[in-house]
Amino acid sequence: MEFALNLARSAAGQTSPNPPVGAVVVKNGEILGMGAHLKAGEAHAEVHALQMAGDKAKGADIYVTLEPCSHHGKTPPCADLLVEAGIRRAVIAVMDPNEKVAGRGIDKLRMAGIDVKLGVLEKEAAKVNRTFFHYTQTGKPFVTLKTAVSLDGKTATHTGDSKWITGEAARMDVHQYRHTHDAILVGVNTVLADNPSLTSRLPNGAKNPLRIILDSTLRTPLTSSIVTDQKAETWIITGNQVGAAAISPYEKLGVTVISLPAIDPDTILRYLGHHGIMSLFVEGGSAVHGSFLMGGHINQLVQYIAPKLIGGKDAPGVIGGKGFNAMNDVLPMVIKSVETIDEDLKLIAEPQEEDTHVYRDC
Amino acid sequence: MEFALNLARSAAGQTSPNPPVGAVVVKNGEILGMGAHLKAGEAHAEVHALQMAGDKAKGADIYVTLEPCSHHGKTPPCADLLVEAGIRRAVIAVMDPNEKVAGRGIDKLRMAGIDVKLGVLEKEAAKVNRTFFHYTQTGKPFVTLKTAVSLDGKTATHTGDSKWITGEAARMDVHQYRHTHDAILVGVNTVLADNPSLTSRLPNGAKNPLRIILDSTLRTPLTSSIVTDQKAETWIITGNQVGAAAISPYEKLGVTVISLPAIDPDTILRYLGHHGIMSLFVEGGSAVHGSFLMGGHINQLVQYIAPKLIGGKDAPGVIGGKGFNAMNDVLPMVIKSVETIDEDLKLIAEPQEEDTHVYRDC
Repeated sequence: MEFALNLARSAAGQTSPNPPVGAVVVKNGEILGMGAHLKAGEAHAEVHALQMAGDKAKGADIYVTLEPCSHHGKTPPCADLLVEAGIRRAVIAVMDPNEKVAGRGIDKLRMAGIDVKLGVLEKEAAKVNRTFFHYTQTGKPFVTLKTAVSLDGKTATHTGDSKWITGEAARMDVHQYRHTHDAILVGVNTVLADNPSLTSRLPNGAKNPLRIILDSTLRTPLTSSIVTDQKAETWIITGNQVGAAAISPYEKLGVTVISLPAIDPDTILRYLGHHGIMSLFVEGGSAVHGSFLMGGHINQLVQYIAPKLIGGKDAPGVIGGKGFNAMNDVLPMVIKSVETIDEDLKLIAEPQEEDTHVYRDC
Repeated sequence: MEFALNLARSAAGQTSPNPPVGAVVVKNGEILGMGAHLKAGEAHAEVHALQMAGDKAKGADIYVTLEPCSHHGKTPPCADLLVEAGIRRAVIAVMDPNEKVAGRGIDKLRMAGIDVKLGVLEKEAAKVNRTFFHYTQTGKPFVTLKTAVSLDGKTATHTGDSKWITGEAARMDVHQYRHTHDAILVGVNTVLADNPSLTSRLPNGAKNPLRIILDSTLRTPLTSSIVTDQKAETWIITGNQVGAAAISPYEKLGVTVISLPAIDPDTILRYLGHHGIMSLFVEGGSAVHGSFLMGGHINQLVQYIAPKLIGGKDAPGVIGGKGFNAMNDVLPMVIKSVETIDEDLKLIAEPQEEDTHVYRDC
């Protein structure tokens, strides 16, 4: 199962809106087939593994990181395939929370006489599939907030100079996150300040995420990189008071402008979830971070800490807005890991509830 | 020598204005004596170790973490004692930077025919003695800035609520630092906001540091804990425009009020150095931190990071003042260690120059 999880991990971030899944077919201690689900609409992990095993799959065991599906989607149900292939025993890490499956795949296997063992490395599998689980359970993308700060929690000097807080290796690490996310979101102030391209620039190539700009009054310059560079799809989310004449030039340049009645994180996340965005990487600025924090929409924090002291009462911090009033109200987190990336630190934290939530539901 | 360093480490923070030193007397692989310098005015490490060895010291080796002194201070010169005891060989970690010694102790030993080996575990010894080295070389105390922040770099909510950022274990760790420092310094705003006692509260008892308040216009309440509790000596540093009538009530309560022409960190540190303060623990608030940062007076940062998100553009950060203008001007640090203390992180960082400085001079 550990190997099956590694197969699943290899495809994490490229299967949206499906979960990454790994499967291994084994008989008499010998691996006969292996596979991972690589891309939505393409073959599931079990299909690859069974195809590799061929006729030898008869009487074999299959290890699969997520309950095999039982419904006809873009591909036929995997549970039926396991039965047809003559699988003797299915070892499954975790049940599929998708209401179309949710135990029905397991029922199908058991009714066909397959010995089913559920819950092997369940926590690890839930972690591999956490984005999918969150999306399935809430209808909203899993939100990762990325920040880069000095030791004194600043993102720029009081004059606005922010190039660069962190070193090159930490900035490269960010591109890996962009690659594995469906969409990246920033506020219009970040576009105005930095004119970022928001693409994934990795040495061996990368998948660019959808770029989303929150811009209630449509101030994004028509000359900005995200409008003109054609390197990735761009959506601008604006208020519904913005007229068609203002929107038209963006659309002519291939940008999608979406008018929403309210530009609050909850409305936006529901909209994105409805459009199949399973994972969202939020990269600034502080006002956007503030609204996501206060709305309870941060599922994970990835923070790079540079060994620098910037100082300044008016130097900008990482989370703006009003903030919580009392220490009893602030968001309690759990630090999941700390590592060094060259001279910088990388810290990953999650809200306490999120932490229990993921495991409780599995 | 590793053992001698451990003897020295055991007395770190209690020998001011002397350095912590350890000494071990060895013959034929057998330890004959050991000692550490425990308190200024009392016997040096070599004296303890030689006394323990008694007559057996003749022909033995001595391992000592700092060059033995050559001058008559409160105690007779240790170099002479080594010669009298008939020591054959002296292994010394690091030379004493104090200009009264600085090689003269070694010269004395060599002239008496003792075989001297210098530089064994030199870096480690310099680290044990870093406070003393800094003090000897600059005439100013070694400054440790202590901060406690949320993940987003805040020390309180926008309403000023700051109880508590970090957990109990992290706060207990702070008391250990207070115990090993000669003095603790805060600004008057911290006294007004928190009415702290600034004592070392450890389960097995502790040494309280001298408490120093920066208070240019003498606003410290006469009813505040640091004025009334008699638990430790208190100095208030004020501007020299403050009159004797205003100062008198403090002095009647046993507080020392010091009028300086300028209340900038450099003037204060020189004054404290002149009065034998070798180590200073700076604990707030943000304006004080800002002035120490901008003046280049931070020798070490001890930062506790609590896994919380507070948010808020106006929630106070850890370092106030104006701050640096450009990223090229900010203070580059080196992260020396990161550890967890219950749910919190403890991070120790030093200015880059300080880091090279300590080792270059040894």
